[in-house]
Amino acid sequence: MVLGHAESAVLAFDVGGTDVKAGLVDPSGNVLGMRRVPTPLDPLNPGEAVLDRLAGLADELASEFPDIPAKAAGVIVPGIVDSVGGIGIYSANLGWRNFPFTAEAEKRLGLPVAFDHDVRSAAAVERAFGGSKEFNDVVVMVVGTGIAAAVFSGGVPVTAGGFAGELGHAQVPDPDAGTAATITEPIGATILEAVGSAGAIAKRYSRKSGNTVDGARDVLLRSQKGDAVAARVWADAVDALAFTICQCVNIIGTEAVVIGGGLAEAGEDLLEPLRARVDQILDFQRRPRLIQAQLGQDAGLLGAALNARALLDGAR
Amino acid sequence: MVLGHAESAVLAFDVGGTDVKAGLVDPSGNVLGMRRVPTPLDPLNPGEAVLDRLAGLADELASEFPDIPAKAAGVIVPGIVDSVGGIGIYSANLGWRNFPFTAEAEKRLGLPVAFDHDVRSAAAVERAFGGSKEFNDVVVMVVGTGIAAAVFSGGVPVTAGGFAGELGHAQVPDPDAGTAATITEPIGATILEAVGSAGAIAKRYSRKSGNTVDGARDVLLRSQKGDAVAARVWADAVDALAFTICQCVNIIGTEAVVIGGGLAEAGEDLLEPLRARVDQILDFQRRPRLIQAQLGQDAGLLGAALNARALLDGAR
Repeated sequence: MVLGHAESAVLAFDVGGTDVKAGLVDPSGNVLGMRRVPTPLDPLNPGEAVLDRLAGLADELASEFPDIPAKAAGVIVPGIVDSVGGIGIYSANLGWRNFPFTAEAEKRLGLPVAFDHDVRSAAAVERAFGGSKEFNDVVVMVVGTGIAAAVFSGGVPVTAGGFAGELGHAQVPDPDAGTAATITEPIGATILEAVGSAGAIAKRYSRKSGNTVDGARDVLLRSQKGDAVAARVWADAVDALAFTICQCVNIIGTEAVVIGGGLAEAGEDLLEPLRARVDQILDFQRRPRLIQAQLGQDAGLLGAALNARALLDGAR
Repeated sequence: MVLGHAESAVLAFDVGGTDVKAGLVDPSGNVLGMRRVPTPLDPLNPGEAVLDRLAGLADELASEFPDIPAKAAGVIVPGIVDSVGGIGIYSANLGWRNFPFTAEAEKRLGLPVAFDHDVRSAAAVERAFGGSKEFNDVVVMVVGTGIAAAVFSGGVPVTAGGFAGELGHAQVPDPDAGTAATITEPIGATILEAVGSAGAIAKRYSRKSGNTVDGARDVLLRSQKGDAVAARVWADAVDALAFTICQCVNIIGTEAVVIGGGLAEAGEDLLEPLRARVDQILDFQRRPRLIQAQLGQDAGLLGAALNARALLDGAR
């Protein structure tokens, strides 16, 4: 994939909850020397530990491709990210709070660094090359172990200082709530991630059935073979995802929802019941187009490279 | 209130579900000859009936102020509004579908017409002059008989072709649902307007208590005097409003919510429990500032006048 016409190579780092992906993106947009290593977890110095690992990866790539010097680096991370201030505000999984990523990364890498949010960066690539490019009001959801999202309004990313797109933490009705709310009890609600993520599907099925299960895909297969508990858990996930999608439609008039991540691999087994449920919930509102993400696991790395290119071009 | 330095007077029309407000706004921004008449309801020609009434009001104002000729008119209406195309796409209360307001209004009034959404136009005035001007990510909610809203992201209105801001129709948990969802039943959900509006508070209290009640304010007074049913209904409304506010926070990182309309007249009796409930629902997210709207019933009329001024200035 060609990422523009910049003449410089850039380093790209996609820091995830489990793995760090790294590569050198050459002037033509080819990803060279791509590698994946476990994300270092240091509870005391979580940000520093990650950046030390990135510096090591940068050295490896410099040795492997001595004739293609990188002129900038793109670093993307999960959680709440202030890309303007260069701060990793919060990551529940990786543990940092208000860590100055841009400044510390520039120190270690000796390069200008474009620091940004993982899903917003991947979503920008998905928007540019995937099935949602004709729409201006788009939500890109990555549904895997957790749920993250990037929101676009009028073709522009909605960031709100890094606090937008927390769809995984948006409230949904709790399918396990026994009774409705009373004055003295909180509403029977939970968060989307606890019902609609691939992780939640596997966990809820195991808890309800007592059977160990190999991920959300296994729950879907069991449901298709007539397992009523599996069918219930899958339907609960669809209900929860539809609930949140309809919130987006009502609040910001979302026209298209792109669904990526592990759960999207279910394809129409997910999208078809999801469309039906969304249609049932909505009234006079426009029905949003539900689209499977076209770009795979590398969209983040490409997004990080695009951010670094934009930095060199003076566009960020 | 001075609305800028344009040298021309404009007509302003705020078409509501019950009343039409009209006035001539002079070059200094003073509203002259303000009047309020019932909104004509013609099920067969709802758009035409309204515009005929506006033309009559324009004639009255022209006779009353012969020396202050209007150079443009601002018309605002509720429902789903495509202000760019000049179309009233849908109004549940007033009955039109895809009515070409701008073209038809210009024909009847003989003036250039700025056509827009009532709450978005009032919210722009509230944003410019009220308590939310320091914030970029703002939701302005008008909570009265129904609930309408205007959404701002990064300081810019989110319109989505007129489909954004339908907060009154966003789903909330149904406080009257007896049981949780199962595969065969829909989720125990209703819409915000059916629980959190001033209209719903009066209606739900009457239904549950068998007592006739004089609006939401009466329910609040009864609750303060120890009426448990009134307290329950008020708390349900607070819960529902908090639920939707938290959806905005999670989806678009809303920093401030301005609450206007009849229910906002309850002031801290509404805002204080609402802040507490929002705080309880949210986790790591920023707490949004909850602010009472400062501008009263005339914000719509001023917004319509601002739209007409902007049209004359070439700014729309």
